Amino acid sequence: MLDFVNKAKWDAWNSLGNMTQDNARQSYIELVSSLVPAETSPVNEISPGSTSIYETIEVTTKDNITKIMFNRPKKKNAISIKMYNEIMKALEEAGKDDSAITVLTGNGNYYCSGNDLNNFTQISPGGAEETAKNSAEMLKNFVQHFIDFPKPLIAVVNGPAVGISVTVLGLFDIVYATDQATFHTPFSTLGQCPEGCSSYTFPKLMGLAKATEMLLFNKKLTAAEACSQGLVTEVFPDSTFQKEVWARLKAYANLPKKSLAVSKQLIRNMEKEKLYEVNSQECECLVERWLSEECMNAIMSFLQKKSKL
Amino acid sequence: MLDFVNKAKWDAWNSLGNMTQDNARQSYIELVSSLVPAETSPVNEISPGSTSIYETIEVTTKDNITKIMFNRPKKKNAISIKMYNEIMKALEEAGKDDSAITVLTGNGNYYCSGNDLNNFTQISPGGAEETAKNSAEMLKNFVQHFIDFPKPLIAVVNGPAVGISVTVLGLFDIVYATDQATFHTPFSTLGQCPEGCSSYTFPKLMGLAKATEMLLFNKKLTAAEACSQGLVTEVFPDSTFQKEVWARLKAYANLPKKSLAVSKQLIRNMEKEKLYEVNSQECECLVERWLSEECMNAIMSFLQKKSKL
Amino acid sequence: MLDFVNKAKWDAWNSLGNMTQDNARQSYIELVSSLVPAETSPVNEISPGSTSIYETIEVTTKDNITKIMFNRPKKKNAISIKMYNEIMKALEEAGKDDSAITVLTGNGNYYCSGNDLNNFTQISPGGAEETAKNSAEMLKNFVQHFIDFPKPLIAVVNGPAVGISVTVLGLFDIVYATDQATFHTPFSTLGQCPEGCSSYTFPKLMGLAKATEMLLFNKKLTAAEACSQGLVTEVFPDSTFQKEVWARLKAYANLPKKSLAVSKQLIRNMEKEKLYEVNSQECECLVERWLSEECMNAIMSFLQKKSKL
Repeated sequence: MLDFVNKAKWDAWNSLGNMTQDNARQSYIELVSSLVPAETSPVNEISPGSTSIYETIEVTTKDNITKIMFNRPKKKNAISIKMYNEIMKALEEAGKDDSAITVLTGNGNYYCSGNDLNNFTQISPGGAEETAKNSAEMLKNFVQHFIDFPKPLIAVVNGPAVGISVTVLGLFDIVYATDQATFHTPFSTLGQCPEGCSSYTFPKLMGLAKATEMLLFNKKLTAAEACSQGLVTEVFPDSTFQKEVWARLKAYANLPKKSLAVSKQLIRNMEKEKLYEVNSQECECLVERWLSEECMNAIMSFLQKKSKL
Repeated sequence: MLDFVNKAKWDAWNSLGNMTQDNARQSYIELVSSLVPAETSPVNEISPGSTSIYETIEVTTKDNITKIMFNRPKKKNAISIKMYNEIMKALEEAGKDDSAITVLTGNGNYYCSGNDLNNFTQISPGGAEETAKNSAEMLKNFVQHFIDFPKPLIAVVNGPAVGISVTVLGLFDIVYATDQATFHTPFSTLGQCPEGCSSYTFPKLMGLAKATEMLLFNKKLTAAEACSQGLVTEVFPDSTFQKEVWARLKAYANLPKKSLAVSKQLIRNMEKEKLYEVNSQECECLVERWLSEECMNAIMSFLQKKSKL
Repeated sequence: MLDFVNKAKWDAWNSLGNMTQDNARQSYIELVSSLVPAETSPVNEISPGSTSIYETIEVTTKDNITKIMFNRPKKKNAISIKMYNEIMKALEEAGKDDSAITVLTGNGNYYCSGNDLNNFTQISPGGAEETAKNSAEMLKNFVQHFIDFPKPLIAVVNGPAVGISVTVLGLFDIVYATDQATFHTPFSTLGQCPEGCSSYTFPKLMGLAKATEMLLFNKKLTAAEACSQGLVTEVFPDSTFQKEVWARLKAYANLPKKSLAVSKQLIRNMEKEKLYEVNSQECECLVERWLSEECMNAIMSFLQKKSKL
């Protein structure tokens, strides 16, 4: 939980002070609203094919591999609204380009620290309920990009992964991790519930008894644990991680690319309808959570507790 | 199998003697009828909220945790008809009470030795077929209480577990076990078939190749094996088992309780209809089994073999 | 891949030479047509009950066990058209006979090297498309015999297993393997896609992240890896493999046989409709693959590459 919140602690708490209950509620609304996409996203103005103008990610294509790199290393690659939109855009383009496989990875020591809690700027004029619905709509759309991705999708997990960056791993085809990676989904600590189809993919992967420990009781997995539970394909020593993994990926990218895509879709199509349904249910559930007294109190008490450390 | 039947051996065999084929059939009917709930269950007369009058279990609520303890240690916590009914009653009340999580555990050295074969008293006047149907109806109802339980349900497996107490573990959210625990489902030995939704949950958890060894070929798992196959969340040394587990459970019980319940239901609702269907099919299958020549012969020959030891 | 193709290399390449593009296409058609059942299969003329006339397998029944042994040891038990038909016939008879369990194993050092690429003889007059459809029809029928098999089906994997002999293992109830066994499904290397319901059973067994490495990226598993991923029930040292396994199987075969069959069907019926659907989709997909430029080029370039070694 430390990684997830340490950065929120200073920014958020300093602006929180000894605020009243009304102020606390307002802060909560602001927190939720942080998930709402800006009305005029600059991403939409990007000319198609031009990848260099991404601000929060870096996209390169080489050797039949499209690499999407989370590129906010100073923020531990936390996903801001702009970054949600840029990742979706990049996935859409990678799905259509000429590459055989697509790789997601992080720049710096972190893979991705999950949803960016610092993003306290967008307040929806429609109030908390509309804000929560819009946030859920964006999240649902984001996850659907992973469900629908038409080619082999490979995660190169170069360090700790938190929240949404962990849950969507259940939708990847291959997950390679350094032994420095950890996997953490602290939903209940903040009064929330699982997303990214993890309420379906995690129990399917590792059984209910292990999935619940992660999804309800906030257990942080080591890379080795995540591998033995089937979330990770293979773990590599950090010193040789990049070298070994990219050698392997280059070999994969030389395989007949249509065969790879068709095989991936054959596997995915078996449960695509189920995944859509799960994604919808999770997002509905999150709207209820975000608007609940319990969730607000959990977030406020969490921030207050942290501020006394 | 020893644990399961040793107690039946003396009681049953002494009353069996060199009986004729007709007598054998009668004994079999009595065995089956042992599963039928008494017409006027004393449990129904218990005033709601009063938990101290349970005879076969002990129910306590403390620190946001409701603990249901199997309490027939001299019978290795075998489940009698009264105990089936008391467990259902206790689950209904725990589902509605104010606690965050519910824990099942056993008093003494055993977790639970499964269905109580000593219970040879209730003979249905409607004959074998009606008796079998009533037994299956009670079992189906019992299992449905686990499918429908609305909060995190946690097993603290303090020793060997047999039969129905093992199969329903696939419906628990967390299973913590001492290293002295074992997991045994010897259905085919007695000519029967899997229940407790294990015909669905076990293959989903551990794959067909490992599930079949347990469910068809009577393999008894150690705690470590059960953990590596996903049936158990984590195994603890027996000396520190209670201390470590309850410290952890107390921490869990302080998490936002609505968030826990909603998250659990989100995961469960994905497959609730499927679980209902599986439960029904298993119970139908058991009726056919209980009424089969093969099942009767298996039980009789098993008892006869044992008597010659 | 070596095992799979080494035998094809000499036979095929020698007849390939420096052929033109047209010739290459013709060779490809011949390769595909190798899967088509001969119009008048000699197997159909076999009188029921007489098992000694199988040419490619050996079927024996003893101690309540029907053993079907792949019996082309010089061809590493590659499955020819005749052998596909004989296995189906043997499964049909074993399903109806008096035995409790049915065992598949291989004669010699190999379990089975998969589809026999040497079988270049049957050219369908209807052209490539009809040939591909007929091949897929036969494959679908073959796999359906495993889906529908009514008793416990046990694989005794005595050595390396390749392709279709690996994928259908996901439909077996128990898989025992010597530590000399390996498991290899090199579909994408030849521009093809998974079959034998593996696109469904493998992700269910081992999770998407590990299944994809096998099914898309051609990872060859050791017996220990296959066991830890749930494809194999248990691994035995090669020196005691046959002795230990058959002792165990004899014990299994003495269990109440109706109970075993009913329990197996209870488990299987949960997903039978799903498996039919998966089998159909995989075979449709394979038709498209076999007729694709990519698949032809993959096979040709593979053979050309090999010929230069």
